[in-house]
Amino acid sequence: MDFLSDFLMRFLSQLQSPTLGFLIGGIVAASLGSRLAIPDAAYKFIVFMLLMKVGLTGGQEIRDANLVEMLVPAAFAVAIGILIVFIGRYTLCKLPNVKVEDGIATAGLFGAVSGSTFAAGLTLLDTDGIPYEAWTAALYPFMDIPALVTAIVLASVYTNKKRSTADEDLSKQEALSEREAFVTAGGGGYPSSPRIPTGEYPGDQGIVASGYPSRQPERVKIWPIVKESLQGSALSALLLGIALGLLTQPERVYETFFDPLFRGLLSVLMLVMGMEAAARLGELRKVAQWYTLYALVAPLLHGFIAFGFGMIAHYTTGFSLGGVVVLAVIAASSSDISGPPTLRAGIPSANPSAYIGSSTAIGTPIAIALGIPLFIALAQALGG
Amino acid sequence: MDFLSDFLMRFLSQLQSPTLGFLIGGIVAASLGSRLAIPDAAYKFIVFMLLMKVGLTGGQEIRDANLVEMLVPAAFAVAIGILIVFIGRYTLCKLPNVKVEDGIATAGLFGAVSGSTFAAGLTLLDTDGIPYEAWTAALYPFMDIPALVTAIVLASVYTNKKRSTADEDLSKQEALSEREAFVTAGGGGYPSSPRIPTGEYPGDQGIVASGYPSRQPERVKIWPIVKESLQGSALSALLLGIALGLLTQPERVYETFFDPLFRGLLSVLMLVMGMEAAARLGELRKVAQWYTLYALVAPLLHGFIAFGFGMIAHYTTGFSLGGVVVLAVIAASSSDISGPPTLRAGIPSANPSAYIGSSTAIGTPIAIALGIPLFIALAQALGG
Amino acid sequence: MDFLSDFLMRFLSQLQSPTLGFLIGGIVAASLGSRLAIPDAAYKFIVFMLLMKVGLTGGQEIRDANLVEMLVPAAFAVAIGILIVFIGRYTLCKLPNVKVEDGIATAGLFGAVSGSTFAAGLTLLDTDGIPYEAWTAALYPFMDIPALVTAIVLASVYTNKKRSTADEDLSKQEALSEREAFVTAGGGGYPSSPRIPTGEYPGDQGIVASGYPSRQPERVKIWPIVKESLQGSALSALLLGIALGLLTQPERVYETFFDPLFRGLLSVLMLVMGMEAAARLGELRKVAQWYTLYALVAPLLHGFIAFGFGMIAHYTTGFSLGGVVVLAVIAASSSDISGPPTLRAGIPSANPSAYIGSSTAIGTPIAIALGIPLFIALAQALGG
Repeated sequence: MDFLSDFLMRFLSQLQSPTLGFLIGGIVAASLGSRLAIPDAAYKFIVFMLLMKVGLTGGQEIRDANLVEMLVPAAFAVAIGILIVFIGRYTLCKLPNVKVEDGIATAGLFGAVSGSTFAAGLTLLDTDGIPYEAWTAALYPFMDIPALVTAIVLASVYTNKKRSTADEDLSKQEALSEREAFVTAGGGGYPSSPRIPTGEYPGDQGIVASGYPSRQPERVKIWPIVKESLQGSALSALLLGIALGLLTQPERVYETFFDPLFRGLLSVLMLVMGMEAAARLGELRKVAQWYTLYALVAPLLHGFIAFGFGMIAHYTTGFSLGGVVVLAVIAASSSDISGPPTLRAGIPSANPSAYIGSSTAIGTPIAIALGIPLFIALAQALGG
Repeated sequence: MDFLSDFLMRFLSQLQSPTLGFLIGGIVAASLGSRLAIPDAAYKFIVFMLLMKVGLTGGQEIRDANLVEMLVPAAFAVAIGILIVFIGRYTLCKLPNVKVEDGIATAGLFGAVSGSTFAAGLTLLDTDGIPYEAWTAALYPFMDIPALVTAIVLASVYTNKKRSTADEDLSKQEALSEREAFVTAGGGGYPSSPRIPTGEYPGDQGIVASGYPSRQPERVKIWPIVKESLQGSALSALLLGIALGLLTQPERVYETFFDPLFRGLLSVLMLVMGMEAAARLGELRKVAQWYTLYALVAPLLHGFIAFGFGMIAHYTTGFSLGGVVVLAVIAASSSDISGPPTLRAGIPSANPSAYIGSSTAIGTPIAIALGIPLFIALAQALGG
Repeated sequence: MDFLSDFLMRFLSQLQSPTLGFLIGGIVAASLGSRLAIPDAAYKFIVFMLLMKVGLTGGQEIRDANLVEMLVPAAFAVAIGILIVFIGRYTLCKLPNVKVEDGIATAGLFGAVSGSTFAAGLTLLDTDGIPYEAWTAALYPFMDIPALVTAIVLASVYTNKKRSTADEDLSKQEALSEREAFVTAGGGGYPSSPRIPTGEYPGDQGIVASGYPSRQPERVKIWPIVKESLQGSALSALLLGIALGLLTQPERVYETFFDPLFRGLLSVLMLVMGMEAAARLGELRKVAQWYTLYALVAPLLHGFIAFGFGMIAHYTTGFSLGGVVVLAVIAASSSDISGPPTLRAGIPSANPSAYIGSSTAIGTPIAIALGIPLFIALAQALGG
């Protein structure tokens, strides 16, 4: 009871915090048909500024950190990223009217990490004065990349299986019509073969080695997916920030520029995300209602799983309760910016409306407005 | 004499203030053919930042304000907004070579409010240490919307009248040719019927219910015009800021972000507006010289009218002299950003070069560089 | 020995400074294929902010400065700008496989000044607490414009000479075919005649008066080149900043906006320049390796020449050692932003890959990462 009332009070008070206030303000404004718009260039620059700041903080902290401490939380982050995708594979994908590829891609996006949600979480921890290890910023890629890789691998396995079944059915007819096949232009005319969009996302040509009409199950190459993720703009900015924090002395620009502007820029970003969430709701209506259910439940479920893993680390290695919250927030978040292009290139047969709509319209607001206050209240209930 | 020398000294000293200095710098640079350009995205983001800051200030202040105090100034703002359009209707529109629709649209824009001029006025008041009620930020829509609505209604009334006269002339011929009319595609083939541009501005389809070939005078729907104004990017940002200032606790981002950046961003905006003013001068030359005269006189005339109204409020309800200046500045300003799309959709037959040119090239610089120092000097002469 | 170890320590320590750290971070990130991107609008706005700040600083300082002091350094800046182009004309252009027009254009760009390198130099001087005359900001155009003018004049002289040689060869045939010449459309059909691109860069129509089929050597008009340079966005921003610093009282926005944001924005700009440098390396490979050699050697050579001139001013007029470093940095820098359009319009027959590639990919990183620490170390060795 105490926990519940504590959470409710915290929830109501945090709705008034600039972070959540601007998010909700954006949702309301867009719902009322406001034509308010933050230019795309400003939005992208703000995302860069936030991730660079988070990276610089992390990098400066890692300099003095005991790296062994990081091992357990990092291993847990990898495990959670993979687990989230498997959970989606065996729940969302089994629901009626959900195309398996769409479900896997959605689960992949919910396993991947959102830089904005992450930044919002750190800000609320700072506001409440809850300490956490600054190297937790470095946990981001440990969950983000495994989730995306797992999703692409699972989708590829599924596509191959479906194809071999189709192959058996076709084999008799094929024996007859093999001569014609040589006549038609392009060999790989299987209806379910994933088509890789060319030129739309830089670097996507290297990701999936499928699409050729081989009979044996294809092997998915993992390194290109990892590389693609690391080269994405969000992870790049974060990793570059960590590297600069670790190897150079950015204190002067950190203290006069990246740090003081952080909260304000985050509030603007929250406004954009709120407007985006409201705009995407329509897109979500087009796909099955099961996505809505998944997007409502998954952030909190994933967050609680990660919270459990984090508590194990807390009791065994002394991982701080603030760090446990960070791990839960990373797990609760779903990727908005960097994940979609990777998935679009890696699972080209999945419908982007399904996974982007679920994540942006519901997953992210739920994670920020419900998840973060909940995990903080939980940490305080356990720690106090 | 004292007042004049005081004004001249103030005027010369304020030309050196960053706000006016950057405005004039922009005019000079553009006149000398500089290719200096502030990217459009930066410009739009700056406008957002300024209006959000003004809104947040206002909202935070309204929390503690006595709302009854606002009633008189708000009613005056509505009255002034409507009055300005009527003045234009019976002066500018009566001048030779001025098309009535163009004149009404220009008067509407001069009745509407410019966020930048408004922000410049508040900054100069702060610099001079003249106190004003912070809820004056909330007066903006009370003048802006009635002015736009009045202009669109007057234009519609005029168009209907013109049409019915044309109808009478046409009626005899029409009786003969009615059968042919059914053959031609589209019913509303009257030469003077306003054509609504479609798709150019979001939401414009709902604004004017004209264009159909009815005989009886059309009824203009007011709510769509109000809604269109409220949803525009400038008013949206201001109102969202007011709402966030009123309902959330934005102190932290306000004090670290929106407030400290305000003056600097305003100076950049003034530079852009100066360059824009110089670039629009050529556009203005294409339309009659009467627009130039109107644009030179109107800002000061409107400002003085509002100053008079404000003094009434000052003596009756204790409205501060700073607030009187704000009311005069709002009246002197003419809309640059949010007004034009509304007018373009609402009075589609008016020529945008006429009204945008008058406002941006002459009205705004006059209001900022002459009007604001004048009203401040007047307030100090009356108050000291 | 002392100097060398001092330089090496300084070099290594400055690699850790945010300015150089972000530059190298950008090079590394782009080399690893990062898709990190700073939006173009943000980049342009940052350049504006930096040059405006440098200009405001300079303008405020000039107010109190003894302008006679500026005469010697300004005259030296002009001389160095011209000298650099002549050096390129008689070294780079004489190398095998180097087209003379390409070589002259490259030398012109290396004589012109980079606002970013300049800003980086001032920042490192501030960090090391080395004083310099703030009016050194005003030296920028004194080197930039003469270099570009000289390059365009030399290229024109060369083109004319080449043409008259060709004319002599052609004269006999021409006597026979003169009638046909009148038949073909357009008189100036000489194969080597420079073609002025139209509309690509504003204002380029006035720059070169060549292209008409006159027999006598053409006269190059100098004023249009100077005007073109002064109107360019970089020089405009700088000169506007100087004017505003000189004539208005920008202290308030300077202290709350332009100055505190300077270092942070510079670090972001360095990141962009590093990424750009890495991206241009490929472009450079397409042209001869002699450009690479020139771009490696020229910044340091030019810097040392300017350092020598600066020391003369130091001993004769008391020009500060910090000022000597600024002069050397201006000479070592090569224009990235404002120079290329002027050259493209002024020497249309030169290949932009050659000169932009040399400057952006090699010249600028060398000037910033090697040149600046070297000149500072030299100044401290001489001054200490």
